[in-house]
Amino acid sequence: MAVYTHLDDRTLTSLIEQFDIGTLESVKGIAEGVSNSNWMVTTTTDRFILTMYERRIELRDLPFFLGLLDHLAAKGCPVPRTIHDRTGAAFRMLENKAVALFEFLPGVSIEHPEPAQAHSVGQALAGIHVASADFEMQRRNDLGLEDWRALAEDCGEEGLMEIDPLLPEIVTSELDFLASQWPHELPRSVIHADLFPDNVLMLDNEVSGLIDFYFACTDITAYDLAVTHAAWCFSPDGREYKPEIGAALLEGYTGVRPLSEAERKALPILARGASLRFLLTRAEDWLHTPGDALVTRKDPMDFARRLACYAADGEKCFALK
Amino acid sequence: MAVYTHLDDRTLTSLIEQFDIGTLESVKGIAEGVSNSNWMVTTTTDRFILTMYERRIELRDLPFFLGLLDHLAAKGCPVPRTIHDRTGAAFRMLENKAVALFEFLPGVSIEHPEPAQAHSVGQALAGIHVASADFEMQRRNDLGLEDWRALAEDCGEEGLMEIDPLLPEIVTSELDFLASQWPHELPRSVIHADLFPDNVLMLDNEVSGLIDFYFACTDITAYDLAVTHAAWCFSPDGREYKPEIGAALLEGYTGVRPLSEAERKALPILARGASLRFLLTRAEDWLHTPGDALVTRKDPMDFARRLACYAADGEKCFALK
Repeated sequence: MAVYTHLDDRTLTSLIEQFDIGTLESVKGIAEGVSNSNWMVTTTTDRFILTMYERRIELRDLPFFLGLLDHLAAKGCPVPRTIHDRTGAAFRMLENKAVALFEFLPGVSIEHPEPAQAHSVGQALAGIHVASADFEMQRRNDLGLEDWRALAEDCGEEGLMEIDPLLPEIVTSELDFLASQWPHELPRSVIHADLFPDNVLMLDNEVSGLIDFYFACTDITAYDLAVTHAAWCFSPDGREYKPEIGAALLEGYTGVRPLSEAERKALPILARGASLRFLLTRAEDWLHTPGDALVTRKDPMDFARRLACYAADGEKCFALK
Repeated sequence: MAVYTHLDDRTLTSLIEQFDIGTLESVKGIAEGVSNSNWMVTTTTDRFILTMYERRIELRDLPFFLGLLDHLAAKGCPVPRTIHDRTGAAFRMLENKAVALFEFLPGVSIEHPEPAQAHSVGQALAGIHVASADFEMQRRNDLGLEDWRALAEDCGEEGLMEIDPLLPEIVTSELDFLASQWPHELPRSVIHADLFPDNVLMLDNEVSGLIDFYFACTDITAYDLAVTHAAWCFSPDGREYKPEIGAALLEGYTGVRPLSEAERKALPILARGASLRFLLTRAEDWLHTPGDALVTRKDPMDFARRLACYAADGEKCFALK
C-alpha cells in the first residue's frame, strides 16, 4: 500500500503527452496496490488512474490483464477501461517498468455490506463471467488447486504449527480431500479470483467498479463465486457466517448467470478450496513477515474458520431461498 | 508519506454528512504528509483533501493553521480554503484525532524550476506576507534561532562528526556567528517557513497552490524569503547555485512586497540561518534513522554546502539585476 517509485513532474508531463487526454493538472500518489504503484491523475479533460508495475512477472501477463479490461468494458461491465496511447498501445515502458493508464471509476469500498449490495456484487460478478465468454486469451491460475500443496510445503509443518497447533492436520487432510473431490469437469472461464470488498467500488447499493484484476485467470467459473462468497459473507475473522449476505450474493449472481445443478452442488467444495487458498497465502505471508514489521499481517486462521464452516454447513451456505 | 489510519466507508460517509458538500462518491488515501494522513475525497459537488492529524502536538496549533488558511484564502492567496462543517467548525474529532477538510487545489509540484516559475513563487510568497499583515493570531517558531543550539546539542559532537568530520566545527562557529549577527529588529509577520518545491503546486508557470502550512509561524518576514531561496535556487545536493532562479525569485517577491534596505542587507545572514536550520533538522533525522531503514534519509551536507555558498557569496546571491 505505497508508492514505490518517484515520478517527477517532467516525466509525468511527457508521459501524459503520449495520450490524447489533455494536459496534466494534478497528480497524487495513492495508497493502493501491493506490487504496483498508483497515482490519481487529473488532466484538463478527465481523471485517470496511472499504474506502474513494479514486478517483472506481471509484465508477461499484462496483455492478458489489459486486454481483459478492454473486453469487459466494451461489453458494459463496470471495470476501468484501459486508456491507449496515441500509437494505440495499452501500456508503455517508463524507467524500465510498464505503466498503464485507466479510466477513473467513482465509488467507495464497503466494509459492512448490506444484502442489496451483495446482490449487486453477485450480478456484477456473473456479468464478467458472461461477458468474458468470447475473450480469447487465457491465463493459468498460479494459485489454483495444483499449487496449494507447494504452498503448504513452503510454509512447512513447523511453520503451520507455529500459527496454530491444529493447522498442519487441517491443511493436510483438506489437501487430500480436495484432490479427490475437485470438480474438474465444471465450466471454465475468465475469473477475477480475488473479489474481496476492497476490490469493489460502490455508489449507494450498486457496484460502480470492479478493480484489481491482477489475479484474473482462466479457471472454474463457479470457483470465482465461491471465492467471492468467502470474501463477502463472513465477519472478517470468519467466526460469523451472514446467511442474508450469502443468499443475496447467490440470488444476484444466478439472476444473471444461472448455475447448473453440477455447479450448485460443487459450491461447498469450491468454497473449501477458496478458503484453503487464502489460508495458505496468508500463512506464507505470515511466516515471511516479522511479527514486529510495520505491515499488518492478516491472520490465516480467519480462513481456517471459513473452511470449517463450509465443511460443516456448506450445503446450507449455498442453499437458495 | 503514508496513510496511518484506516477509515471505513461508514465512518467516512457519516463524516462527510457533517459538511454541506453533497454525498461521498470516492475516497483514495494519498501518499502525502509525514505526520498526518490524507485522503482525496470526491463528492457529488466537488473534490476535497481530508487531513487527519496523527500527532497530539498539532492539535494545539490547529486553530492557528486553519485560521491562517481561511484568512489567506479570503484575501485571494492560492492556499487551500478550510471547509467548515454544518456547525461552522474548522475541524472535528474523529476516533480521537482531529480531522479537517480542505478545498482541492489543482497543480503539480515542480522539481526543476524555470525562472518564470521561481518568479511566480516569489510573488506568491510575498502575497501571503502582505495578506497576513492583519492576521491576529501568533505562533512561535519552534525551529528558530533560539532552538538551533539545542538541536545541535541533541545531535552531539560525535553524531555530527559521524556525518562529516568537519561538521562540528561548522555548526559551532555558525551558531556563534548567527547569535551575534542575527537581525532581530527586522519586520515580522506570519511566515510559511518550509516553502520547498513539494509544497508548491503549479499550472504551467503559475503558482496554483501553496500547501503544507504546518511549520507556519510568526518570525522575521525576510527569513521566509531566505528559506525559499535556499529551497529553490540550488541543485538538490547544494553543489550548484542557480543565479537565474535566485534572481527571478527575488524579482517576483520584491515586485509584490519591496524589501527595505535593512532586509536586503540581512538576506545573506538569514539564508545562512535557513541553511543551518535544515542542516540541523536533517542531521537529527539522519542520526535517529537507522541506515538500513526503508525511509530515505536526506543528506544534511546538502545544506552545509548551501551554507558555505551563502557565507562566501551571500551578497552576490541576493543582488538584484
